[in-house]
Amino acid sequence: MEHDLQQTMALLTRTPAALNALLRGLPETWTMRNEGEDTWSVFDVVGHLIDGERVNWMPRARMILQSGESRTFEPFDRLGHLREGRGKSLEQLLDEFARLRSENLGELRGLELRQEDLERRGRHPAFGVVTLSELLATWATHDLTHLHQISRVMAHQYRETVGPWSAYLGVLQCAGHSSA
Amino acid sequence: MEHDLQQTMALLTRTPAALNALLRGLPETWTMRNEGEDTWSVFDVVGHLIDGERVNWMPRARMILQSGESRTFEPFDRLGHLREGRGKSLEQLLDEFARLRSENLGELRGLELRQEDLERRGRHPAFGVVTLSELLATWATHDLTHLHQISRVMAHQYRETVGPWSAYLGVLQCAGHSSA
Repeated sequence: MEHDLQQTMALLTRTPAALNALLRGLPETWTMRNEGEDTWSVFDVVGHLIDGERVNWMPRARMILQSGESRTFEPFDRLGHLREGRGKSLEQLLDEFARLRSENLGELRGLELRQEDLERRGRHPAFGVVTLSELLATWATHDLTHLHQISRVMAHQYRETVGPWSAYLGVLQCAGHSSA
Repeated sequence: MEHDLQQTMALLTRTPAALNALLRGLPETWTMRNEGEDTWSVFDVVGHLIDGERVNWMPRARMILQSGESRTFEPFDRLGHLREGRGKSLEQLLDEFARLRSENLGELRGLELRQEDLERRGRHPAFGVVTLSELLATWATHDLTHLHQISRVMAHQYRETVGPWSAYLGVLQCAGHSSA
């Protein structure tokens, strides 16, 4: 499947505003509660998205362009969100996510990648060889994984409140898929 | 669990703007494709949300307040989105959803419901007796079910493009739960 980078960037551009419109000012019942022990709240998820902007997506893209398969990506620290969230409000995290995403997309545009650049290869610690195309498509799909998780974590808070309708609400049948 | 109606309305108020920020102007790869035969595209889902604003949530709330358990709700036509979407653009549907939701929330606020009103009962064609509280909580959770579905339908379009990362992306493990 041909990868249309404009299409990927169109989604990456919109995620911060979508989360902002959904989450800013919402009561904490929706944003600070999780699905049980060792699961994430919406607040945690936004911290994780920030962490990805800092240490995952563009650093890995740069490594592919600079070093190809000769260097292996740093493993992504799935607890990095704890560092990002400490002492902050959700509103501060939403601002920070929007700022970092905008900077990263600015850098990505500046690279003026062509189709042949998208085929350049890097080395993932678990998967082995991956392409820049796959990395950038994953960046956008990772946004969707966490939008999927956010809607599920929020819906969980109303599991009892909806009464018998819980049987009809698909999101309440979703058991989650790993932690995301 | 006590139902805080302000909390429910805070979410209902935000959904149209969140969908607008996520979807307006997105390439059609994201918005017009589905998950296979007899499944919904993002466009279909927004049509379904409009249909709910017209024929489901507030009409049922009014029926509970006016007729209690003596009248059974009309079954919800799950193909009503086809009628809503015909000849329209996604942008028109987003505008229509925002307008109808705003009108409905205005009407809901005007009812000045108290805690005892939330305990009033109606009759659902499949579940039997339900409360106004459960109906209104379901309205908000139904938004989340379809945000969950939208993120999954969009991610499906990149299932191949992400390469080996598909194993790590939770949304791609989600098989869906009924059609939502």
